[in-house]
Amino acid sequence: MSGKSYNVPPSAEFVARVSGIATMAKLPFQETAEGLDAAFIGVPIDTGTSNRPGARFGPRQIRAESAMLRPYNGGTRAAPYESLMVADIGDVNVNLYDLKDTCKRIREAYRKILKTGCIPLTMGGDHTIAYPILQAVAERHGPVGLVHVDAHSDTGDVILGEKIGHGTPFRRCVEEGLLDCSRVVQIGLRGSSYSPDAYAWSRAQGFRVVQADECWHKSLVPLMAEVREQLGAGPVYLSFDIDALDPAFAPGTGTPEIAGLTTIQGVEIIRGCRGLNIVGCDLVEVSPPYDATGNTALLAANLLFEMLCVLPKIKYYN
Amino acid sequence: MSGKSYNVPPSAEFVARVSGIATMAKLPFQETAEGLDAAFIGVPIDTGTSNRPGARFGPRQIRAESAMLRPYNGGTRAAPYESLMVADIGDVNVNLYDLKDTCKRIREAYRKILKTGCIPLTMGGDHTIAYPILQAVAERHGPVGLVHVDAHSDTGDVILGEKIGHGTPFRRCVEEGLLDCSRVVQIGLRGSSYSPDAYAWSRAQGFRVVQADECWHKSLVPLMAEVREQLGAGPVYLSFDIDALDPAFAPGTGTPEIAGLTTIQGVEIIRGCRGLNIVGCDLVEVSPPYDATGNTALLAANLLFEMLCVLPKIKYYN
Amino acid sequence: MSGKSYNVPPSAEFVARVSGIATMAKLPFQETAEGLDAAFIGVPIDTGTSNRPGARFGPRQIRAESAMLRPYNGGTRAAPYESLMVADIGDVNVNLYDLKDTCKRIREAYRKILKTGCIPLTMGGDHTIAYPILQAVAERHGPVGLVHVDAHSDTGDVILGEKIGHGTPFRRCVEEGLLDCSRVVQIGLRGSSYSPDAYAWSRAQGFRVVQADECWHKSLVPLMAEVREQLGAGPVYLSFDIDALDPAFAPGTGTPEIAGLTTIQGVEIIRGCRGLNIVGCDLVEVSPPYDATGNTALLAANLLFEMLCVLPKIKYYN
Amino acid sequence: MSGKSYNVPPSAEFVARVSGIATMAKLPFQETAEGLDAAFIGVPIDTGTSNRPGARFGPRQIRAESAMLRPYNGGTRAAPYESLMVADIGDVNVNLYDLKDTCKRIREAYRKILKTGCIPLTMGGDHTIAYPILQAVAERHGPVGLVHVDAHSDTGDVILGEKIGHGTPFRRCVEEGLLDCSRVVQIGLRGSSYSPDAYAWSRAQGFRVVQADECWHKSLVPLMAEVREQLGAGPVYLSFDIDALDPAFAPGTGTPEIAGLTTIQGVEIIRGCRGLNIVGCDLVEVSPPYDATGNTALLAANLLFEMLCVLPKIKYYN
Amino acid sequence: MSGKSYNVPPSAEFVARVSGIATMAKLPFQETAEGLDAAFIGVPIDTGTSNRPGARFGPRQIRAESAMLRPYNGGTRAAPYESLMVADIGDVNVNLYDLKDTCKRIREAYRKILKTGCIPLTMGGDHTIAYPILQAVAERHGPVGLVHVDAHSDTGDVILGEKIGHGTPFRRCVEEGLLDCSRVVQIGLRGSSYSPDAYAWSRAQGFRVVQADECWHKSLVPLMAEVREQLGAGPVYLSFDIDALDPAFAPGTGTPEIAGLTTIQGVEIIRGCRGLNIVGCDLVEVSPPYDATGNTALLAANLLFEMLCVLPKIKYYN
Amino acid sequence: MSGKSYNVPPSAEFVARVSGIATMAKLPFQETAEGLDAAFIGVPIDTGTSNRPGARFGPRQIRAESAMLRPYNGGTRAAPYESLMVADIGDVNVNLYDLKDTCKRIREAYRKILKTGCIPLTMGGDHTIAYPILQAVAERHGPVGLVHVDAHSDTGDVILGEKIGHGTPFRRCVEEGLLDCSRVVQIGLRGSSYSPDAYAWSRAQGFRVVQADECWHKSLVPLMAEVREQLGAGPVYLSFDIDALDPAFAPGTGTPEIAGLTTIQGVEIIRGCRGLNIVGCDLVEVSPPYDATGNTALLAANLLFEMLCVLPKIKYYN
Repeated sequence: MSGKSYNVPPSAEFVARVSGIATMAKLPFQETAEGLDAAFIGVPIDTGTSNRPGARFGPRQIRAESAMLRPYNGGTRAAPYESLMVADIGDVNVNLYDLKDTCKRIREAYRKILKTGCIPLTMGGDHTIAYPILQAVAERHGPVGLVHVDAHSDTGDVILGEKIGHGTPFRRCVEEGLLDCSRVVQIGLRGSSYSPDAYAWSRAQGFRVVQADECWHKSLVPLMAEVREQLGAGPVYLSFDIDALDPAFAPGTGTPEIAGLTTIQGVEIIRGCRGLNIVGCDLVEVSPPYDATGNTALLAANLLFEMLCVLPKIKYYN
Repeated sequence: MSGKSYNVPPSAEFVARVSGIATMAKLPFQETAEGLDAAFIGVPIDTGTSNRPGARFGPRQIRAESAMLRPYNGGTRAAPYESLMVADIGDVNVNLYDLKDTCKRIREAYRKILKTGCIPLTMGGDHTIAYPILQAVAERHGPVGLVHVDAHSDTGDVILGEKIGHGTPFRRCVEEGLLDCSRVVQIGLRGSSYSPDAYAWSRAQGFRVVQADECWHKSLVPLMAEVREQLGAGPVYLSFDIDALDPAFAPGTGTPEIAGLTTIQGVEIIRGCRGLNIVGCDLVEVSPPYDATGNTALLAANLLFEMLCVLPKIKYYN
Repeated sequence: MSGKSYNVPPSAEFVARVSGIATMAKLPFQETAEGLDAAFIGVPIDTGTSNRPGARFGPRQIRAESAMLRPYNGGTRAAPYESLMVADIGDVNVNLYDLKDTCKRIREAYRKILKTGCIPLTMGGDHTIAYPILQAVAERHGPVGLVHVDAHSDTGDVILGEKIGHGTPFRRCVEEGLLDCSRVVQIGLRGSSYSPDAYAWSRAQGFRVVQADECWHKSLVPLMAEVREQLGAGPVYLSFDIDALDPAFAPGTGTPEIAGLTTIQGVEIIRGCRGLNIVGCDLVEVSPPYDATGNTALLAANLLFEMLCVLPKIKYYN
Repeated sequence: MSGKSYNVPPSAEFVARVSGIATMAKLPFQETAEGLDAAFIGVPIDTGTSNRPGARFGPRQIRAESAMLRPYNGGTRAAPYESLMVADIGDVNVNLYDLKDTCKRIREAYRKILKTGCIPLTMGGDHTIAYPILQAVAERHGPVGLVHVDAHSDTGDVILGEKIGHGTPFRRCVEEGLLDCSRVVQIGLRGSSYSPDAYAWSRAQGFRVVQADECWHKSLVPLMAEVREQLGAGPVYLSFDIDALDPAFAPGTGTPEIAGLTTIQGVEIIRGCRGLNIVGCDLVEVSPPYDATGNTALLAANLLFEMLCVLPKIKYYN
Repeated sequence: MSGKSYNVPPSAEFVARVSGIATMAKLPFQETAEGLDAAFIGVPIDTGTSNRPGARFGPRQIRAESAMLRPYNGGTRAAPYESLMVADIGDVNVNLYDLKDTCKRIREAYRKILKTGCIPLTMGGDHTIAYPILQAVAERHGPVGLVHVDAHSDTGDVILGEKIGHGTPFRRCVEEGLLDCSRVVQIGLRGSSYSPDAYAWSRAQGFRVVQADECWHKSLVPLMAEVREQLGAGPVYLSFDIDALDPAFAPGTGTPEIAGLTTIQGVEIIRGCRGLNIVGCDLVEVSPPYDATGNTALLAANLLFEMLCVLPKIKYYN
Repeated sequence: MSGKSYNVPPSAEFVARVSGIATMAKLPFQETAEGLDAAFIGVPIDTGTSNRPGARFGPRQIRAESAMLRPYNGGTRAAPYESLMVADIGDVNVNLYDLKDTCKRIREAYRKILKTGCIPLTMGGDHTIAYPILQAVAERHGPVGLVHVDAHSDTGDVILGEKIGHGTPFRRCVEEGLLDCSRVVQIGLRGSSYSPDAYAWSRAQGFRVVQADECWHKSLVPLMAEVREQLGAGPVYLSFDIDALDPAFAPGTGTPEIAGLTTIQGVEIIRGCRGLNIVGCDLVEVSPPYDATGNTALLAANLLFEMLCVLPKIKYYN
């Protein structure tokens, strides 16, 4: 390390894990993104969910369980805190009573963050939030590529008469030109569906769709090589719905679907994003009331740490 | 029983409790209120809640636990199913993504129910729903008296910039002239507050406010005699937020406050309403994700049964 | 203490609470009642239950939580282990697939225990077990008095076409002349009922019925003076269904009823039995799957210890 | 769709998932099987279980969680509601206090259902129920082939002195000639055993036994090709014990065994039954008290939907 | 309010409850007690517990649930944030592997806090922590009076061969002269005991002992008048073990005892301390793993807020 | 079987699973290891844990769930109770307040056990206990080989200033020469780390390190052939931390790490130890408060049974 000094979370070797205010990864809290290369930020809503709520407590619970995180990635030897200035910048102040207004608030908040050049790593919250985040992202970076890991395509048009909800964000994004549709991949899709050809719309936009059953019984390392090829050098947003993983691995979520990805595959996907020009990430749909052990939140904390470890300019020891 | 034949739930003496589709009290399900004297109906939302969600599953869980209910009231000897035609008429089809639209849907649904002369016994859902229900009730009956049992006054003006939410319904009702303010009593209020004189607004409207600490260590039978006096012969709506009760008795709720009423006091309040001209009732804010045993839902099912047992024209064996 | 040496559980002052095979109160385990003045014994069934099962694990969970018990009664200064030879004699080997056969097995087991002169303190199991236990008890002692603490009278005749189940034991006992009906009291009865006069049958037998609402808001010490008067010097059996207590105090049970007794009242009832000629006790209907914290089992362990402390010949330090 | 109009559950696009009486897959409820091609039916018992009870609540919880199901199979493109008339016909009224009588009641109920030509899809309940169901099935169809997916062979002779329980149904079926033994396959068997050669009896009857360890680390698609070969064109019954799956995937069950099948393998088995002449199916042993999140019930709902999607005459869009 | 500006937590009227880093009562976090009149501080240990652990997560969970707190006391009209400068100063960095060293670290930390004149309001952690805290308190204030609310006297001498643990802190305090023994009251003591006269040692020191059974069925307002008389004008420390309350009210704790105080009585005790010269408070033994709903932590947060509201110099609106 | 008679647990065919005092595998309890070939023993501590406690209840919960175990290994056809004299010898009496003293007590206890020639199968407790156990083992057998299955290397030097804790046991063992470092393998290591090369120290000692990602997507049967080669004929200790398995399979543990081994792989490892000269085994870190279903304890019970089945001299039926 040269002269620049980065934030480094206190090690559990010296400060007891249970001790201290719960911030993400025990990083310092600061009010704005000013001066940061990357920031963890929460968007605590679940008012866009169609079944079980609870994701509003996602950021709080992920922070609590993140006390288990240590500073290096033992698997990839990434050293994020020797590479980037990172902090926890708290939560967007959402409007729990009006989802459309919440979307405005989120977009505004992300505009400010992105203006500083900081890369946001978002702790959801339900998947509705990807829409206003991508509005802000595309405003800065132009239409972006997308790695969308999920059980559901989230490309519905209208639900219960509404355009905004956790089943529609990527339809809205396409309509507003926020995505570079040839640079979009959706991985893990599955479950019962509203029409026999559930992913026709996605494919019609030019998305690559990788259904969960194409992933069964195998490593996703080869898939990710293809994905990197597809997405190339342009800006990429990574949106990871925890329900992409099988409910065995991620029980604490609102709309679980059986026969999903394993955690190992989830990690392979994120690690496979190394080299992409990632401009933002989210991990959404952790619902603590359905996560009695806290293990789904702990999983989310680890996946967010893996995301941090594949951001551009991260140093690796190997 | 004369010639008229009423719905009677199958007795657990002959049909196993665990057997059968879960309707409220194992009553028959019918689509509309047509032909009914009283109807159980669910309003499954929690999008008006300020803290823990989950009340959207209240109706489903109350129905499930209501399998314990038997046809007579062992305490008061009321025989509701020898007096009234009662059924479960399902749930209002709410819009989970727009709380204001949900309120419209509720108002419409209750207009139709009330037009038939049926008395609705509502399973919430968060307390927001009392506002559109009372719109429909007042439309039919004129401004009504109110027995409001709750930890919170729910008379906030604006919250997070919004007029509609579970902390504001009774302010809205007053503004729209839905309540006969001299015939309103609020029982069980307590907790930390946004101003030092938390119930000033309620008192200024002419409400009787009975704080929880006025109820500590004693029977509420005398209070209810006064309440009956205050409310007289006009139409009365009974709105019971399960958080009126101490969290020891009702753990499964979204905004619990300590040092509340006992279940016994809750029962005394409802039984004390016998003789009032009740035109509608609700039991709100049961949040199943926080009710691991189902006991809060079971409590709610019993309180709703107690409400049924004090409706006008109920036969008593004594 | 003379020369006789009694079993004394290892104190948590010297042996860690968490250490050791889980027996009731950490007492020694022995295979039979031989040589004992009193014995804890489990009857692990729930196949007589009408709603939620789980009571089959009652004995196991009560034993686990009983590690909190210390040797003296801090409230009454009873010293049971300076007075009686007590042990845990394990469980009756029940037939989970045939409730009638289970009843035979229980009766046989208790015959053997009672033959030794040992007083059984039973950990249920559902309330069905009181019937075969009382068969054995009456065989030895003749018709006995009964202190029956419960939310339900358990005096049903037939349920789902069956004579044997947890809603009928005391009807069977009366039919077989096992009870001295003028020396029976039922305390805590409440809830919705199959007929408007729910306790008519009990009263017709000469039982004293004390409904829960007669107990609200007051100490039961005066009631127990009357009960001791009523029951006199003859042999008495104490049967305590944990659902006598309000679900706030005893959530982990199968057929909870709201507005019940407090734990304090439960303790007052048991302590009020001091001086009676108790020949057997049970504590039934703890259902561990509905007792996530173990606190209902811990409550049961304490109530069983209170029962031990009122057996004849117990020494008191005051 | 031609002129015939089928039952179609309300889509969550138009009716909120949380709204409405909980029937299986939100299908209409009707009292009998009259007019149906297939029917979901519950058998709510657990009185045949040897360890943890709770399966009596299986049907209720499966119905509750089935609100997540949509009308098409996104994986196979099956369109069951364009092919068959399906409804939920409620539960068998079981006798919780006498397992043998319950078996009689089940047999009677299924006789009536099968007489109408309707295919029953059963929600258990413990596995005991397969015996009386198969009595009725064989009465109509003659000895049937069996795809039995389970951790246990359930071929015990006597347990605790009894012939009837959840460990013995298939022994009873063989004794009564209900199975075409050369057309039986048992998949997923494992666990500690009462004898060193645990599956000798099954093999001696001519069953194909596929132990779980033969399934480890691989797809079961090839196995199912062999199974279809083995079972041929005759009538087949599919009995799926949720404990066939590893407890990671199906924690909410009564006698879990480690190192089991994955959900993916479970789906492969069911989808691999496409083309067989299935005359009945069951999904048993979901125990809600051990399923805090509801995810095991949700899994069961999905597996039952997959079963519906492989019934004869189902239309596929591909 | 004059010129001085105090910390005021963001109101849930303007900032969503779920939003933001979890500090106690949403107060600002600062590293030291400098400039504060009162400070919330956590001591996250459970290595002094004799039965169930988990209290190490007490501070984290209390902070999370404290998001429900509003700035005024609706019951007493106290306005703490118009009176005192308050903040959350994080946790003592405990040594989880050596309880004696942890005690040293606590004592050091509190010395520093007390040196600033700040009053510490401690979130435990197990009750061991009262010993080193009182060492620091007595060092500054001399021997102090004590209001000790607890199910247990915590005056053991040696346990498992050790002097330091959660059953011994007040014995150690007396031995070291930290308490003014004539100004000590212990309220709520109960449970089985290691000797027939469980509280003899306390009484021998001159403590007033109020056993739980002296509190049954009544208000503690009269008792507290006597306590204020007894304690007079000298410095007082308030130590509140959540297990003083009945497990119905506070299930999430490590060594629950039945038949305890109600929450109402707990509040009466704290409010009854108004007027005393309180120099420090603690709320200990909340064990989140046994508090699935978070309601015990929420109760603790409220009790800590009530403590804040009775500190010297607090302004009351009445 | 010749003349020697072994302990055989009562079969669930004759004794109900729920019946009886909970010992490991329902084996007889005896106070010492005298006369035994192998003994199950508990070490109930969690005072060495760095994050979530609860492992102190591991032995109690493993015993409770072990009621599911039958006498033969259905997978391998091992017949342990026809080969060895086995019993449950209870727990070490630990000092919960001083971890260093606890270590002394454990070492002493194991010295006595090992002196009899009995092989201990330990139920933890946290992983700290491996250090004093290995002190006793090496004292008897000299430096031993080690199969260490874990998410963590547990080779830390100092944590929070301490040498003894659950993150350091194997460092201590190496320092004291208790291990034959060329005959050590660590399997399953993963997670974030305190340095970029997390396992450098292990490798520097000559350990074989098999990181979890080397195990992904494949059978470990080939690995275990290599391990048997590496470990040869000398004495071997098997230490299995349940967190080696992915949290999906073993949620009930204190420091879970994502993307771990499957249960199947865990079983393959243990079965792959057949033929090694195993002189002791442990299964540690089961934390019941995080294991609501009991399934992690059940998994542990099964893994311990698998360990028993690979001890030297076990008879196999094939």
